[in-house]
Amino acid sequence: MNNKAKKPIKPIYIISDSVGGTGLKITSAVLAQFPNLQSSEIKRFPFVTESGQIEDILADAKVEQALIVSTLVNKELIAFINNFTKKIGLRHVDLMTPLTSCIEEQYQEKSLQEPGALHKLDSSYFNRVSAMEFAVRYDDGKDPKGFQKADIVILGVSRTSKTPLSMYLANLGYKVANLPIIPEARVPEELFKISPKRIIGLTTEASTLANIRQSRLASLGLKSSSLYSDRQRIQEELAYASDLFEQLGVLTINVENRSIEETAVLVEEYYRENFQLAFNHLI
Amino acid sequence: MNNKAKKPIKPIYIISDSVGGTGLKITSAVLAQFPNLQSSEIKRFPFVTESGQIEDILADAKVEQALIVSTLVNKELIAFINNFTKKIGLRHVDLMTPLTSCIEEQYQEKSLQEPGALHKLDSSYFNRVSAMEFAVRYDDGKDPKGFQKADIVILGVSRTSKTPLSMYLANLGYKVANLPIIPEARVPEELFKISPKRIIGLTTEASTLANIRQSRLASLGLKSSSLYSDRQRIQEELAYASDLFEQLGVLTINVENRSIEETAVLVEEYYRENFQLAFNHLI
Repeated sequence: MNNKAKKPIKPIYIISDSVGGTGLKITSAVLAQFPNLQSSEIKRFPFVTESGQIEDILADAKVEQALIVSTLVNKELIAFINNFTKKIGLRHVDLMTPLTSCIEEQYQEKSLQEPGALHKLDSSYFNRVSAMEFAVRYDDGKDPKGFQKADIVILGVSRTSKTPLSMYLANLGYKVANLPIIPEARVPEELFKISPKRIIGLTTEASTLANIRQSRLASLGLKSSSLYSDRQRIQEELAYASDLFEQLGVLTINVENRSIEETAVLVEEYYRENFQLAFNHLI
Repeated sequence: MNNKAKKPIKPIYIISDSVGGTGLKITSAVLAQFPNLQSSEIKRFPFVTESGQIEDILADAKVEQALIVSTLVNKELIAFINNFTKKIGLRHVDLMTPLTSCIEEQYQEKSLQEPGALHKLDSSYFNRVSAMEFAVRYDDGKDPKGFQKADIVILGVSRTSKTPLSMYLANLGYKVANLPIIPEARVPEELFKISPKRIIGLTTEASTLANIRQSRLASLGLKSSSLYSDRQRIQEELAYASDLFEQLGVLTINVENRSIEETAVLVEEYYRENFQLAFNHLI
């Protein structure tokens, strides 16, 4: 971003019959492509299921001259927005209909038009809740018994993003345990009793790790000359981890320049390939 | 879902220049509207940034007669898919262009067409990583010092979904601490030193909680006649929590019949209102 004066833009309203997270993500992704536009106010209207609610929202939208983005499944409500916005000269981007129509035409099936079908409090939902509790319980090698119960076990030296990766995967429904690799600490024997296909080793570049650890020490108010951030020591740790990963026969992922999401995609693809799972974990 | 024979459908390919999570979510949401179609195979192709990659993907798509869904920002690549799919008779749903074109026309600005602009390893990314570590560190009242550092503090009796809610909010970038409310345990005095606007109390129905706790005891192999799942005891706990929430002057959310996402929306809206924040936490 630069300091050049940016064009102000009108608010964007996101109307959803569910949480509105997907509409928000697409809108944010698109806005990120316009650095010269001043980031506009995004207003999210979740759980909209009646035309009365839409009337109120569009009355405000008219005053603010807002752009309307919708992720609704009910066709009457979508038509209602289409007509209303046309009449008052606002723009409406409907994110659901193109794919829905495409599937309806191809398979001659009508869509349910039942809002929030994805967020029902069903068993997959409870699985996700327990996956997140699992990840907290078995974070940082707290209890080696977690390894045998986990879908995925993440290994890596300090500051290779084991915890956020575990939480991100847990949020998708996977039961994840993680263990810090430290040359001085013996690896729990439980680790050798599970399938190596369930285990992922994280690695990164020594120089990056040294920088990250120095920042961490600084944030804790400690001096940076510690062994923890010493380049030589870090190289030894990474080499030790690398030997262990080889001995275990596990997939190693280099997290250098990868976001949590990117690393998570690699872990998921690997896991799904090995265990032949569909994407239904992900709802 | 019923056992009636379902129509099989062709695979759906999701082509993204980033992780592909948003395309996957929209596709899953749309497919959930077609219960009579056999859930199709969804193949995700993340980090696609070159036409060579697309050629390979579309060659496979042709063999499988797949439906193509894309979330790409590069117009040449989108045009490439459009042309190619038209030529070989496949359908293509482009989720990004409608909103992008709408903004381009309205503000006479060209989009950057820079893939993955949202997932850059920038400061907001590192904030999110540390938010997730924060949530693990200050889960379950482990350390009352967390309350003063947290954006949001979640309170509630056992099994009101404090942990998954905290992890979900952490994944969005909020620093969240949580504390179980137990009549016999004194509430840490740190809680009275922070703004009540940062605190959320969770409550639910006693009967639901009794069922959830009974399942939990069963899953731990314990008998269900424990005090933990006793209806009278649960009512006392909820009343105690309710008094505390009132005394603190905090917002109370009833999580009965709400998914984590739904509760999280309410928490976020409340937090954003109080602290006048935009949605940039959410990227």
